Amino acid sequence: MRHVSLNQPFVVRGYAASWPASQTWSASYLSQTLGSHPVNVAITPFGNADSVIDVEDEGCVFVQPYEATEPFCDALKKIQHQELHSSPQHRKREGEKDEDKTQTPTRYLQTQNDNLRSEYLPLFTSIPPSIPFAHIALQKPPDAINFWLGNSHSVTALHKDNYENIYVQVRGQKHFVLLPPVESVCVNERSVLAATYGPRDGGENGNEDLTDLVPHIDTPTSYTPFALWDPEFPTLRSARFSHLSRPLRVTLDEGDMLYLPALWYHKVSQSCSEEGICCAVNYWYDLDFGGSFWAMAGFVRGVGLLSLGGRGGDEEVEEKEQEEEGEGKTIGD
Amino acid sequence: MRHVSLNQPFVVRGYAASWPASQTWSASYLSQTLGSHPVNVAITPFGNADSVIDVEDEGCVFVQPYEATEPFCDALKKIQHQELHSSPQHRKREGEKDEDKTQTPTRYLQTQNDNLRSEYLPLFTSIPPSIPFAHIALQKPPDAINFWLGNSHSVTALHKDNYENIYVQVRGQKHFVLLPPVESVCVNERSVLAATYGPRDGGENGNEDLTDLVPHIDTPTSYTPFALWDPEFPTLRSARFSHLSRPLRVTLDEGDMLYLPALWYHKVSQSCSEEGICCAVNYWYDLDFGGSFWAMAGFVRGVGLLSLGGRGGDEEVEEKEQEEEGEGKTIGD
Ligand SMILES: O=C(O)CCC(=O)C(=O)O
Ligand SMILES: O=C(O)CCC(=O)C(=O)O
Repeated sequence: MRHVSLNQPFVVRGYAASWPASQTWSASYLSQTLGSHPVNVAITPFGNADSVIDVEDEGCVFVQPYEATEPFCDALKKIQHQELHSSPQHRKREGEKDEDKTQTPTRYLQTQNDNLRSEYLPLFTSIPPSIPFAHIALQKPPDAINFWLGNSHSVTALHKDNYENIYVQVRGQKHFVLLPPVESVCVNERSVLAATYGPRDGGENGNEDLTDLVPHIDTPTSYTPFALWDPEFPTLRSARFSHLSRPLRVTLDEGDMLYLPALWYHKVSQSCSEEGICCAVNYWYDLDFGGSFWAMAGFVRGVGLLSLGGRGGDEEVEEKEQEEEGEGKTIGD
Repeated sequence: MRHVSLNQPFVVRGYAASWPASQTWSASYLSQTLGSHPVNVAITPFGNADSVIDVEDEGCVFVQPYEATEPFCDALKKIQHQELHSSPQHRKREGEKDEDKTQTPTRYLQTQNDNLRSEYLPLFTSIPPSIPFAHIALQKPPDAINFWLGNSHSVTALHKDNYENIYVQVRGQKHFVLLPPVESVCVNERSVLAATYGPRDGGENGNEDLTDLVPHIDTPTSYTPFALWDPEFPTLRSARFSHLSRPLRVTLDEGDMLYLPALWYHKVSQSCSEEGICCAVNYWYDLDFGGSFWAMAGFVRGVGLLSLGGRGGDEEVEEKEQEEEGEGKTIGD
């Protein structure tokens, strides 16, 4: 409660070490438990689900992953295989030109729609249904409990959520870069044209070539407000105040728990266990909209957006007003 | 803690009903306990210690009370006498012209410098040395514990403090008008020339005429940032956004306790017990400067000040930049 009231993050090392998930979730346990159960898989060329990319003629575009339904055990095997067998030169940052046109696509199980109480229900008994201290402090049950499974090729781009977040690492490591809400003016948030990855040829004949995914502009045209700045490439897509940001960095090991307060910007990358997987669970609790925090943080962000005007960014970005109600509730939703 | 985290006020009716103070603090008990012990008395012509008044040729001026040292029992008697025997026409609002030049000055015991652990120490055993729930929630002892004794002629002008405040009514009633920190833009805060009440003739010969107190501009000249707007006279000294304010009002009866969160604007007026006194105790706890609240509230206020510019107020007000460090820690200090 003290941390919630100050909107300050903290880590408890080993908090979840004795959870059944921490004890049992090996690749083979997961494979046996979920078998060929169909799951939603986010597929991207560069491990960049829900990120901003540069597209020729369009400029910055917010791109969502191609979504496929695959048997869990197949998706798991592909995630492991890419991690354990693909050569380092395949680990490219979005935008770096690729000489070799054939590209292993990156898979990330990241539905973040309360999937542990639906898609991944057989795993739900391995974790507590709520985090006791969070339940007491926040006076409510979690709104969503999510399962995340990927490898080191996936990076979640800097964004914020309207949620208090309890994030628990189960296998591998997650590396968080964190910015407090007062740094909203640093992230160069813009309304960005929305697109979705898909096979270049549309794959209408059923032969989808997942080694050649390209962004398709969404129809009808829509715009998503998103941070253009990346604290790990501080001179790219920066705005007037980006250099004032003082990011915090923390790595979660197996069994560690992070309280990530509402509206903190976070960029998340991952390292894998020996089995070639990175697996986590998180609990989203609705933030309290009744106090001063929500109103003041919104005002701070709004003034920051005004201060950037059309000239805040170092690059030209399409800007259109759009309804922001509910924005950010789930990434890219 | 939940209320602190939301920066939301609450009242507990009868919280202090069983305190020795609530049981024993009659006028005669106070008089016997403190006797002719010398105390600091704030003396003003209109019950307006620490308020903004209009002064010919100067415009708005922030005026502090004339301070005298008097035996407690004498000050108490004068406070009671004014309440019980002065005719209603003496209850004038500052600025209303007074035909009758002789004016009973208004006395208010309001040192607000932790006076219950110094000046009024004999009364300290009648109250708890800290408020248990506040001590737990805020994780610190009170910074100051204050005794307030006055009558219905005194009104404390709208202001804010850098403190979490636990306010306990002991005798009579206090009437609070409350504005949250996000309404800082409504209060038309300005840097106002500072002055102090004193006898018109300076009283250098020891014959101080307290029936003719006038403001003397402080030397060296200084400016105090202060709210010009009064929610009870909403069309006077208003600024562009004053009409958007939605003040809360609450009256504390004997034994009631108010949690007044840090940075809330409050205007306080009073009604007396049958004995002609209004008496209260309050506990100031340092606010937590470590979280997002302090930074965001300061930013919101700063943007509000900028938005008023030189043209925000409906009246011309002298504006000078001044060092605001520590401003507002105690009223008029
Ligand atoms: O684990 C990730 O890749 C991202 C996690 C995240 O964004 C969240 O929990 O809100
Ligand atoms: O009781 C009063 O007159 C004023 C109280 C006040 O301003 C405070 O407790 O901060």
